[in-house]
Amino acid sequence: MVDMVYRLQDTICDAIGALDASSYREDEWTREEGGGGRSRVFSEGNVFEKAGVNVSVVHGTLSPEAAAKMGGGHDLVGEDLDFFATGLSLVLHPHNPMAPTVHANYRYFERGEGVVEGSWWFGGGADLTPSYLFEEDAVHFHQVHKNVCDRHEVADYDAYKTWCDDYFHIKHRGERRGVGGVFFDDLRSQSKEVCFAFVEDCASHFLEAYMPILERRRTMAFTAQQKEWQQLRRGRYVEFNLVYDRGTKFGLTTNGRIESILMSLPLTSRWEYCHEVKPGSEEEAMMNVLRQPVDWLNR
Amino acid sequence: MVDMVYRLQDTICDAIGALDASSYREDEWTREEGGGGRSRVFSEGNVFEKAGVNVSVVHGTLSPEAAAKMGGGHDLVGEDLDFFATGLSLVLHPHNPMAPTVHANYRYFERGEGVVEGSWWFGGGADLTPSYLFEEDAVHFHQVHKNVCDRHEVADYDAYKTWCDDYFHIKHRGERRGVGGVFFDDLRSQSKEVCFAFVEDCASHFLEAYMPILERRRTMAFTAQQKEWQQLRRGRYVEFNLVYDRGTKFGLTTNGRIESILMSLPLTSRWEYCHEVKPGSEEEAMMNVLRQPVDWLNR
Repeated sequence: MVDMVYRLQDTICDAIGALDASSYREDEWTREEGGGGRSRVFSEGNVFEKAGVNVSVVHGTLSPEAAAKMGGGHDLVGEDLDFFATGLSLVLHPHNPMAPTVHANYRYFERGEGVVEGSWWFGGGADLTPSYLFEEDAVHFHQVHKNVCDRHEVADYDAYKTWCDDYFHIKHRGERRGVGGVFFDDLRSQSKEVCFAFVEDCASHFLEAYMPILERRRTMAFTAQQKEWQQLRRGRYVEFNLVYDRGTKFGLTTNGRIESILMSLPLTSRWEYCHEVKPGSEEEAMMNVLRQPVDWLNR
Repeated sequence: MVDMVYRLQDTICDAIGALDASSYREDEWTREEGGGGRSRVFSEGNVFEKAGVNVSVVHGTLSPEAAAKMGGGHDLVGEDLDFFATGLSLVLHPHNPMAPTVHANYRYFERGEGVVEGSWWFGGGADLTPSYLFEEDAVHFHQVHKNVCDRHEVADYDAYKTWCDDYFHIKHRGERRGVGGVFFDDLRSQSKEVCFAFVEDCASHFLEAYMPILERRRTMAFTAQQKEWQQLRRGRYVEFNLVYDRGTKFGLTTNGRIESILMSLPLTSRWEYCHEVKPGSEEEAMMNVLRQPVDWLNR
């Protein structure tokens, strides 16, 4: 898993760098309590306003509070609080409001020696957050992920698709963050090798799921008004990440590297009081989908 | 208290409107579970990018979860969950990066009939959030609040000043939100009348504490770089409000009116990866004070 996340960080950063005509800033960091990571963030490119691809490989002792906030291992409460965790996490925010933001995360977590039933698990997923709806983009993103899931008996696209819609839910707005994708956690229903094979396959298809979408949107014409709508949607992204995202909350309360955790936030965002979309507008079409998730592959 | 918050909303909105050459949008709203409020937000002015002044007068039944998140009434856990609450809450974000953002809140809370010891309390305070440090502004803001506290035996400026520094603490950044002010909660050490007299005096001096500062800063010249620094500080304001602010968290989990709760967010904000201030710069002078609160009236 550790090899995989480092290899994938290279592959994805190479792809971004080639497209973006820019290079990343790399920060290797260590964590006082054990382990560290390697953050790479593109900030000056012509395609992305901000694009971060982080790897972390950490270990230490969980506080009971942090253990309670985790995705899996619920049966281990009060048990061994030593942990090992590794993962790849990325968020790409393009400049063009027609090009969607994308987020992906693939992770492995272990408590104690990672031998006891329930003491290790994988998690991950990827989700797409457009400001303007292009149905073919949502269909493509979901189809790539369904294809991966269908190749692995341990995976279940329908369940992971619903899990994604449920997780990326800005409850106080009654809106989803985007058009979804897949989300899974506490994956340990088969052997480590079988689960890892799925996670690796999923992660390895990230570029195939996202890059064709980016290619067709990144040079589209847009108006100042459309850029402003993107900024309002960026505000919603901030709301989700700071209010609900478990990874962010976990990082903020466990002395994580703040700049790596918050690289997921967009470069700029906007909040207008009581903003409303115009009936029949493109913005309303987007909102309808955020308010009522669509089963993109079975319409 | 209800009369006071409505009267003060009028007074403050009149002052803003006169300065800002603009008018507010007013929304009277009702809450399904009981009560409602009146929100007024200025959005198109020449002085403020966004300025909201909200009154709420609500009642209902607390969830045990919500009750646990409240400021006072800790001895009443499991007791009567009916509540009545009223308050005035305002956040003013000026355009000019030399002019500080200000926040104030004055509130009364009651559980059950509000008769039993510990079943009623006042809370409130005001704090100043500059992007650039003008020491005389911080001194003035604190002095006005100290003068009010000194007139009331029930109040304690030194304690409220420290409470403010502790409360408006962006823990994951190791920074305070601004240069502080006063913050108090669970105020019930003397009679309702005595506590109210202090709260009313404090609230009635809000304009005296803030307006002279705004007057001297709102037309100062500034550069694009200074505007960008303001936007980064706006990002920190968002971080505090969404991650830590008790009022915001309480509102988001109790079906409050979202647009009224989140009117506190700035119009626009910015996050740059690993931004650092230049040694010896004005921005560094500001950061030093945010990292280590100053006792403005006893230097």
